[in-house]
Formats: sequence, C-alpha cells, structure tokens
Amino acid sequence: MTTTFAYLGPEGTFTEEAAILYDSSITRVAEPSIVRVGAAVVEDPHTKGIIPIENSLEGPVTYSQDLLINNPTLLIEGEVVLPINHYLITKPSTSLEEIESIYSHPQSLGQCKNYLQAHFPEVEQIASLSNATAVTTMLAAASPCAAIGPKRTAEIYNGKIVDSKIQDQDNNETRFIILGHSDHAPTGNDKTSICISFKEDRPGSLYEVLGVFAAQSINLTKIESRPTKEVLGRYHFLIDCIGHRQDEILKNCFIAIEPIVDNLTIFGSYPKYESLQ
Amino acid sequence: MTTTFAYLGPEGTFTEEAAILYDSSITRVAEPSIVRVGAAVVEDPHTKGIIPIENSLEGPVTYSQDLLINNPTLLIEGEVVLPINHYLITKPSTSLEEIESIYSHPQSLGQCKNYLQAHFPEVEQIASLSNATAVTTMLAAASPCAAIGPKRTAEIYNGKIVDSKIQDQDNNETRFIILGHSDHAPTGNDKTSICISFKEDRPGSLYEVLGVFAAQSINLTKIESRPTKEVLGRYHFLIDCIGHRQDEILKNCFIAIEPIVDNLTIFGSYPKYESLQ
Repeated sequence: MTTTFAYLGPEGTFTEEAAILYDSSITRVAEPSIVRVGAAVVEDPHTKGIIPIENSLEGPVTYSQDLLINNPTLLIEGEVVLPINHYLITKPSTSLEEIESIYSHPQSLGQCKNYLQAHFPEVEQIASLSNATAVTTMLAAASPCAAIGPKRTAEIYNGKIVDSKIQDQDNNETRFIILGHSDHAPTGNDKTSICISFKEDRPGSLYEVLGVFAAQSINLTKIESRPTKEVLGRYHFLIDCIGHRQDEILKNCFIAIEPIVDNLTIFGSYPKYESLQ
Repeated sequence: MTTTFAYLGPEGTFTEEAAILYDSSITRVAEPSIVRVGAAVVEDPHTKGIIPIENSLEGPVTYSQDLLINNPTLLIEGEVVLPINHYLITKPSTSLEEIESIYSHPQSLGQCKNYLQAHFPEVEQIASLSNATAVTTMLAAASPCAAIGPKRTAEIYNGKIVDSKIQDQDNNETRFIILGHSDHAPTGNDKTSICISFKEDRPGSLYEVLGVFAAQSINLTKIESRPTKEVLGRYHFLIDCIGHRQDEILKNCFIAIEPIVDNLTIFGSYPKYESLQ
C-alpha cells in the first residue's frame, strides 16, 4: 500500500504548498476541512495528514488544536514552517478601478488589513471558507472583483496577479503539523507537544506545572490555552517543549506532572523544523 | 453631550443584545468591524464601545485582543456575559428539504458542527462576515437556503425560525467588554485585565510572573497568549486577575512584575460581571 497525504484543500492552498515542502513524493488528496483531514488519517493506516497549527500574525488555528484534543489516536510526526505571501488576484480582463468586492478567508483579509484600508477603503470585503475558494469564486463571479490568495492558486486557475506580498507584515509564517499513526523516533533535535488540563479552575496549578519544567531547565516553545467547552474560564493548556518523550529528563517531568493535572495527553515527539534557507 | 454606544453591528448581532443587557438607555450606533468600534471610541470622548472578547466554546476573539494591544488609550470599564443561542432561519416560503446552502459566520458554523452534520450533511456551508449578514444575505438570495443567526435578527428582518438552540453545546456564552476613556472606580468585587510581554523568548519569565501572583494569593481568571507579530513563537500574555488596580496588594504585584517584563499594560479594572439570573 502506498501512503497518501490528506491536506486541507482545495488544490492551491498554503497547506498544499506545505505538503509539497514536507514531502513532494507522497500522493496528495485534498480534503474540505481540518476535521476531514483528521478523519482521513484516523480511518486509514496508510494515510498521513497535514494541517496548519499556528500563524505568526494571527495566532493558533483553533480547529487544529481542537482536532488534536478530540482525537487522542492522532499523533504528530513532524512540522514544517512556510512563509505566507498574499497576492491580489483578478480575472485577466478586470481593471483595478472597477473592483467592487474582494474575496478572501477572514484570516487573510485580517492579514492585509492596512493594505486594503490604503488601496480599497470603500470596497466590500467578502468572507470565503478558504483562500483557494476565494480565487475560484472571484473568477466565476459576474461583477468585477478581486481575491486575496496564494500565488499557486492564481497559477492553477489562470488568475491575473495584480499585486504581490500585500500582507501588512513581512514576518508572516505558518507552522503546519504532520499527523500520523505514530510519532517520530528521536533525532537529537526534537520537540514534544502535550496537552494538560486541571480538575479545578485553579491557575496556581499551571504555575506548579511550569515549575516542573523550569526545575529541569526544559525550554518551552509554546503555551496556549483552549476552552474546555465546559464552562467559560476553564482551559486546556497546549504546551510545546524541547526534547523527545523518550528522553529520561522529559519522562521524569511527565511523571512529576501527573499528580498535579487531571489529564496529560502527549500529542507526539518530532524533529524541530529547521528552515532550509 | 449625550453618550453613544458603538457596537459591532449590523443591527441584530449578539453584540447589540449585549449592549442592551449592559445599558439599554444609551443610544446605540452600529459599526462594521471591531477595529471601527475601537476607532469610534478613540475619536470621540462621548462614545463608549462594546465588543466580544471571549466565547466559552471558541475561545478568545483575537481581533478584540489585538485592538486592546494596539490601542493603549482604550480602557475597559465593564464586562457582560451573554448566553449564545443559535437559530436556524429561512425565508418564510422555504421548506427544509429544498435547502441548498447554509450561511453563517465561520465561528457559528463551528458551534453548530454536529447539528449540521446530523441534519444537513450534504448542504453547502457558506461563510459570512457576521451572523446578521448571514440572515440578510440568505433572505436576499434567489436559491432556497438557510442561515444560522440570533433570534433578534430573525425578528428584525422577518425571517422564519425553523429550529432553535441548535448549537452543539448548551454552555455557550460570550463575554463582552465595554470600552471607554477611563476604567471603573473600585466596587469591592472587581477584575483587572493586563497585558505583559518579555524581552526575550524565555518561558521561565512567565513562570516568574505567575509566581508573583501566587505569592500574594491573587486569583487569575484567565491567561491567554497572542503572537507579538514579530516572530513565530513570541507572545504577549493577556492576564485577568481578581482585584482592582488601586488595591494595595495589586499595586505591589505590578511593582514586583516590572523588572521581569519588557512591557506591562493595564487594560483596566472593572466590576466582575454577575449574572442577573
């Protein structure tokens, strides 16, 4: 059986670009949502998945965090970081002055807020479910409009690139995680992602847990909270730390944390992404 | 000059409901975005604002967090918590079987995920910029469709309520904050919202800050991280704690925190919301 790679589609999304960057040799299958990428992996032992988990400007992708929290069998086997560049795309026949509306995913509209305010203050902004959908919707629309999307989508669907790198800040990158049925063997340069929750809403508990890591000088690269969906103000904490879960030092940390937390889930250990540039 | 209340519109949004709950006597003015609510307050000393800050299922409203981070002159003078109930709304003439698409804000589509999967697995979901827009777009559409939105919007625009409280979980509430030019005088039952950031990406610093609060037995009701937008993996931390910034104990905490952090911003002290029910 050959392995397939389920990604957040449609074709032309940043996630597809990230999949190619991670391993272009695996056959890619577009899925319509993050939840469906997760389901594709859960249902088939030969399927891996790739989804965005965090953007440098917008923060965490909450659907992806919830997917991990709700599916303890999904493990993270890798990560990849992609620079995100946004392009203004129109039909080949559209001129800039006549643009009446601009389509994009709300997150991308947000990332190009200043550009849109400066160049298209009066133009209606329309939300799309993905950047790639924004481009195809724009191309199919009767009225003159534009879309904000990735270069790859413009190329695939023959859109005209009118302006490039229109995002407000240059340091726009997205981190993607690769989902599989097992995590990665130790490489000596690894990260581990975990999720903890507490029985009671007692912020002192988080302080105790951070103390366990601090005592062992384990560097944490991320702490995020996600609502438990039980009551306003109660959270899961998603923590990334340096090291592999098979390392003695991390094993001991987890043992020390167990009595403090209500639940500890290890999402996986995997090689820390190093940019090839 | 009478005071006006800028809220995240259009008319019929949950934010308008929250504005009415907070103080129905103030003249309300709908604004098209969270950023524009903030600008309305900044530009006019007689304008207050109200925006959503946190939902029990979906987590923080990142646009609102960024608004506070980017506008240090905006202060929080109050909060209000609203139970969120979603309604399935159609045109009066539409029957359930013919629905081809369902409009709503992506967050609301997310909150009704299981309901949609169970009742409309094959129906296309279309993102709208607000729940109220979803209802007006649906009512204006040529094809048979539905929208997920608040009861108030259905009533204002004469939509037909087909199903009620369709959200996946009952404990769906949103916390809104009231923005003004000053915060609130001490009442004896207050909360204070602050934002801290660190010079270096050193998670041990957060541990030190939490230790200052723990040593004074100050209860923290929320810790959230937001990307600083400088580099992936560096964060602002938004903390809510019990007490008023004029309390001696909190003043001393802030003095103890100063040398640890790069920046400490106080968003305001205000009465803790108590449900009237």
